[in-house]
Amino acid sequence: MTQWHLDVNESRLERGKRALDQIDGEAGRNVISALADIAPDFATYVFEFPFGDIYSRPGLSVRDREIAAIASLAAMGNATPQLKVHIEAGLNVGLTREEITEILMQMAVYAGFPAALNGLFAAKEVFVAKRS
Amino acid sequence: MTQWHLDVNESRLERGKRALDQIDGEAGRNVISALADIAPDFATYVFEFPFGDIYSRPGLSVRDREIAAIASLAAMGNATPQLKVHIEAGLNVGLTREEITEILMQMAVYAGFPAALNGLFAAKEVFVAKRS
Amino acid sequence: MTQWHLDVNESRLERGKRALDQIDGEAGRNVISALADIAPDFATYVFEFPFGDIYSRPGLSVRDREIAAIASLAAMGNATPQLKVHIEAGLNVGLTREEITEILMQMAVYAGFPAALNGLFAAKEVFVAKRS
Amino acid sequence: MTQWHLDVNESRLERGKRALDQIDGEAGRNVISALADIAPDFATYVFEFPFGDIYSRPGLSVRDREIAAIASLAAMGNATPQLKVHIEAGLNVGLTREEITEILMQMAVYAGFPAALNGLFAAKEVFVAKRS
Amino acid sequence: MTQWHLDVNESRLERGKRALDQIDGEAGRNVISALADIAPDFATYVFEFPFGDIYSRPGLSVRDREIAAIASLAAMGNATPQLKVHIEAGLNVGLTREEITEILMQMAVYAGFPAALNGLFAAKEVFVAKRS
Amino acid sequence: MTQWHLDVNESRLERGKRALDQIDGEAGRNVISALADIAPDFATYVFEFPFGDIYSRPGLSVRDREIAAIASLAAMGNATPQLKVHIEAGLNVGLTREEITEILMQMAVYAGFPAALNGLFAAKEVFVAKRS
Repeated sequence: MTQWHLDVNESRLERGKRALDQIDGEAGRNVISALADIAPDFATYVFEFPFGDIYSRPGLSVRDREIAAIASLAAMGNATPQLKVHIEAGLNVGLTREEITEILMQMAVYAGFPAALNGLFAAKEVFVAKRS
Repeated sequence: MTQWHLDVNESRLERGKRALDQIDGEAGRNVISALADIAPDFATYVFEFPFGDIYSRPGLSVRDREIAAIASLAAMGNATPQLKVHIEAGLNVGLTREEITEILMQMAVYAGFPAALNGLFAAKEVFVAKRS
Repeated sequence: MTQWHLDVNESRLERGKRALDQIDGEAGRNVISALADIAPDFATYVFEFPFGDIYSRPGLSVRDREIAAIASLAAMGNATPQLKVHIEAGLNVGLTREEITEILMQMAVYAGFPAALNGLFAAKEVFVAKRS
Repeated sequence: MTQWHLDVNESRLERGKRALDQIDGEAGRNVISALADIAPDFATYVFEFPFGDIYSRPGLSVRDREIAAIASLAAMGNATPQLKVHIEAGLNVGLTREEITEILMQMAVYAGFPAALNGLFAAKEVFVAKRS
Repeated sequence: MTQWHLDVNESRLERGKRALDQIDGEAGRNVISALADIAPDFATYVFEFPFGDIYSRPGLSVRDREIAAIASLAAMGNATPQLKVHIEAGLNVGLTREEITEILMQMAVYAGFPAALNGLFAAKEVFVAKRS
Repeated sequence: MTQWHLDVNESRLERGKRALDQIDGEAGRNVISALADIAPDFATYVFEFPFGDIYSRPGLSVRDREIAAIASLAAMGNATPQLKVHIEAGLNVGLTREEITEILMQMAVYAGFPAALNGLFAAKEVFVAKRS
């Protein structure tokens, strides 16, 4: 993705679908598919609020939003699948592997060494999978 | 602070003291003072590891590090004093009030609306205090 | 509040405003006011997603939703202001003081005795304030 | 389980065993078995305190207690095996799949979208396993 | 307290009352008093399970149990009142101020620097209050 | 390990390597190896800060530090790999299986029954692996 453009004529749902597709790519589409037979309305909310509302706001770049997403998910330490989605999203929107590694190492300061280690090992899995 | 320059001739402690001073400013100095009569060695560790080691690494800008700090502390939701220090630090290293507000709003997605609300109210206190 | 009626002709924002007003009452209005000068758009999101979308869904009663809100906020233990808002909301939608006390005591099982104790003391403050 | 009846002549242990059996069923028995060779006394405590004491209290229905259990475990996000036990228990005491799905979706509000997603995927596993 | 002796003829409640009194002292009694008008049964559970059951088990010394209590409460970071009670209890059962300070500093490793800092500042308050 | 001796002539890195090797043994070495191709500098920090700085401090015995580590990691509940490393380290520095089991059971009080159960099941895996 080179850049994210806001189109004010889109509905929240359309805008969110486009944003999820461009930012999270295949990993995001897999989450949405997995919701189909348990909570299809929740897939709609995932499109609408995080992506149609929040990620589409102009006040912070999508690259900066992915720094915030990776940092918070690694710090909480209880959402590994979502952390992996956002590590991949970070790569999609222009963060380098080195920058993502730095963000995860920094989490040792705020959330402890285990949170940093588990984040780094999640990144390793994503980086390896992307290489193949 | 215009920019953070790494000086490889400094010791970790000197580098950390300089970084804490430039990034966290008065709020950082207050934390260090408060440690003097309970755990002075811990003040040394605060200088050395988070600032002398992590913040001094060249792979991620100090501005980006403060996005990660604000996001993670707001998401964990159990470290309000440190969140305020880093909101102030974010302003010191070039994040705008709008950007900080966006980061905190985004935390509603990963950590829930209460985490975002409490982060926003912490920012409000910092912003008001800076104005006076 | 005797009961919450869904009006499909309302917008999400209108529906959310009505729900927040009826469920959370004054405590909810205070949160919204406090957002006005820091993040007014976030007030809109609070109306729209938690209240306009989630609380307005017909699959679970508002009383049952407040059981879930009180339990989760007490268990996480890092969102006392929001826990108090929902203890008050619980009373507004028909939970008794005894039922709320039981929910909070039960949190000792899942989140530990400190979470239960801090929840009970938060409830005590709300119950006392309502009496006056 | 049609309904849970309190028998005041039972000991805490007997009452807890009966409650665990009726509420958590096979999933609960598996937890107890797994404790036998590491901490058999802890199995006794699981019977006595959560079930013999808390679940046997008359002030809140067992159905309402399972709403609180599912909500709190999903919100904390670090206890997936116990969340699954209580999703199954919820079905045993009369919550519908739709109601459980609603509780889990609602956790997006208090604990973030990842907590809701991971809770929904845990429910999906339980629902599928029950079908077979 | 010189040492904790188990008396098998006591009931759980009597044993727990004696243990809470000897270990937590005044801080523990204050918690129990505060429960009287909101959840008196919960005061009974606090006596019975944590103190009558767990602390009275012979397999780990009360001093070692207070290390575990202080470490876990500081790491979770959302239970400051209980952390203070157990810092005082640690002093009551023979931990030195230096040892308690070391435990809290160590939490920087597992739970991050904010958890350690907030634990140290809680200890400072307890230590100062004991001096007067 | 019979005992840990501090050698003031060592660098932080040397001291940390020696401490990690003696305390965490093979489990610790595996963590370091796993970091080699994603974040080798973080391996250095793991040696230096937790082990070269904190564990080498004389104010608390290594046995007591492992009580604190096991308690905090079990209570947080989001760092199972690190909990297992420290359960093994606890055995290496003189904690008995019974003592470790007691620490984990006690976590039911502060962090809830799920945290205690998941900690006990992690210990069971470590104990079984050591036996073979």
